[in-house]
Amino acid sequence: MKISQLGEFGLIRHLTEGLKNRQPSTVYAVGDDAAVLNYDGKRTVVTTDMLLEGIHFNLEYVPLRHLGYKAVAVNVSDVCAMNATPTQITVALGVSARFTVEDLEDFYTGVRAACERYKVDLVGGDTCASMNGLTIAVTCLGVADEKDIVYRNGAKPNDLICVTGNLGSAYLGLQLLERELHVFRSMQHDNLAQAAEQNDAIHEKFEGREYLLERQLRPEARLDVVKALRKAGIKPTAMMDVSDGLSSELFHICTQSKVGCDIYEDKLPIDYQAVALAEEMNLNIVTCALNGGEDYELLFTCDIHDYEKLVPLDDVYIIGHITDAEYAPVEGDAKGTAASVPPSNLRLIPRNGNPMPLTAQGWQAF
Amino acid sequence: MKISQLGEFGLIRHLTEGLKNRQPSTVYAVGDDAAVLNYDGKRTVVTTDMLLEGIHFNLEYVPLRHLGYKAVAVNVSDVCAMNATPTQITVALGVSARFTVEDLEDFYTGVRAACERYKVDLVGGDTCASMNGLTIAVTCLGVADEKDIVYRNGAKPNDLICVTGNLGSAYLGLQLLERELHVFRSMQHDNLAQAAEQNDAIHEKFEGREYLLERQLRPEARLDVVKALRKAGIKPTAMMDVSDGLSSELFHICTQSKVGCDIYEDKLPIDYQAVALAEEMNLNIVTCALNGGEDYELLFTCDIHDYEKLVPLDDVYIIGHITDAEYAPVEGDAKGTAASVPPSNLRLIPRNGNPMPLTAQGWQAF
Repeated sequence: MKISQLGEFGLIRHLTEGLKNRQPSTVYAVGDDAAVLNYDGKRTVVTTDMLLEGIHFNLEYVPLRHLGYKAVAVNVSDVCAMNATPTQITVALGVSARFTVEDLEDFYTGVRAACERYKVDLVGGDTCASMNGLTIAVTCLGVADEKDIVYRNGAKPNDLICVTGNLGSAYLGLQLLERELHVFRSMQHDNLAQAAEQNDAIHEKFEGREYLLERQLRPEARLDVVKALRKAGIKPTAMMDVSDGLSSELFHICTQSKVGCDIYEDKLPIDYQAVALAEEMNLNIVTCALNGGEDYELLFTCDIHDYEKLVPLDDVYIIGHITDAEYAPVEGDAKGTAASVPPSNLRLIPRNGNPMPLTAQGWQAF
Repeated sequence: MKISQLGEFGLIRHLTEGLKNRQPSTVYAVGDDAAVLNYDGKRTVVTTDMLLEGIHFNLEYVPLRHLGYKAVAVNVSDVCAMNATPTQITVALGVSARFTVEDLEDFYTGVRAACERYKVDLVGGDTCASMNGLTIAVTCLGVADEKDIVYRNGAKPNDLICVTGNLGSAYLGLQLLERELHVFRSMQHDNLAQAAEQNDAIHEKFEGREYLLERQLRPEARLDVVKALRKAGIKPTAMMDVSDGLSSELFHICTQSKVGCDIYEDKLPIDYQAVALAEEMNLNIVTCALNGGEDYELLFTCDIHDYEKLVPLDDVYIIGHITDAEYAPVEGDAKGTAASVPPSNLRLIPRNGNPMPLTAQGWQAF
């Protein structure tokens, strides 16, 4: 059987099903952004992400400094998505012979900057040689009171659906980088004067798009929002970070919470630079916002009674609400196992008002 | 500057120097087998190891099942080396297109077996595609009372130096596998009948050496010894696991504890299969035991008054004692920073009684 037949989530489910927890300290294991561990009242959360050259990043246009920052930020983002406070990270690196000490210093400059930004401590790791390219594995630990932790499974009908920042920018930043890389590669066969000229041309192409590049190259975890929610006295009912795309994450929350959702197209927060570039590249901006991925914004649901507290919050947008789940009939589903099949009523309400099914395209790792 | 100029430990030191801890929960960060975190009285320990195909393992002769087991065991071993109890692991995998679901199942069969053996919970991870080969990053968490944690820096003159199990077997197992792999590869050019015959011949070559293969392919963490020490009322003064070779680990303990050591050649525990194979391969068995690496045994020091309690313990061997450090004069060492230079009197006492300096060959990652 090919891995592609299962897909990333199917594979993980397949490989981890039937696992039993043995430690009394294991409160919640595989299945959310981070694991929750109970050490004497306080909960420790832990999450791991791997970044591989040629898969997650292309060093032709990703500066190592930004990569170091991003490797930390995406893990911190997972801890934030648990409504926890990130506290420590470990960084494991596999580096091939083509990297110099200066390269790794650059990488660690980014790691340190992110540690500074999020107030996390780098507490361990592993650095080893690799045969090919750069391999990065970061683990992040965080802490929270048990009562504060937010899982993916708590959304209930009528809850408000909120998202932070804006969506699709990181994806469009990537499209821009990829497009200019092609230009850059093709010009390497020309003479040097021409190359320099075209290099200037590329920099011009990036002008006015700096924000999109930043969103792709140096995303931020929304620890500020976690703090703001706490300050406002709001505890989300479900939360995730948007790494694979809004649709995909809504799919996770609705499946685990056994609910449906209505999302309004005209409520989706989208940056004007993203709109302009999508136009130029002939891409559908709504599709970019729904399925782009790598936004590292927070998607959360909260009780409708929190509406008054939500409104004053900076950079938080209400994009829809949770509905009842209406499960599609599934063959052999006699034992009421419908809970494990995707809810059928994830809907996008376009400007014309005619609901369309929301499809979780997500990011296909394999 | 090339990474090889710094070496693995130099590189890590270089990249992490000057890091400041910000969380009150960070008790001990980079510089030992695992980090120690304080969450409400209990200490959490966390450690990460990365295993890369072509560097740490060769899938031509390493079964994926064993690899999964080993990936967990080597991390559990680091937690044991802190005198802590391993509790949870996360596993991040990067897999190239040549791997099937069945391959990953095999890998996870090994992971599960190790989880079962050491009573740890797999609580998270990441599985993603890779361009080349198999990449594994495991993080292990553990827990201990603060008073029980053992660092590398507590050894003091006259302490006994102990090691568990035996040394050099894993290294010799690797030599055997590498030798037979060459035979196997060279025979692939011959006809099939001949190949089958030679394949039988290889299996014969492994007969009577199963223990060495097992030590290389499926090492065990010495959690049993950690428990036995606790039961016997012994708290080591310093402890590490032997992953890079006894000499290298002694070097770490002596440097961090600012002491020297005398190790007796005739006290080194060596298995008879290792002796026989070293003889056949014309390798010096003492060199294998001192510098082989991958033993994943525990090396620890303890107070001489614990001698009576130590003797009855299974599989624990006293191989020498800690001495005063005699630092070699170092240029520009006026500010008393000698503590950071290697102690000069790490000695091996051979059978003839004439002490030789112990050189920390270790394992050069770059």
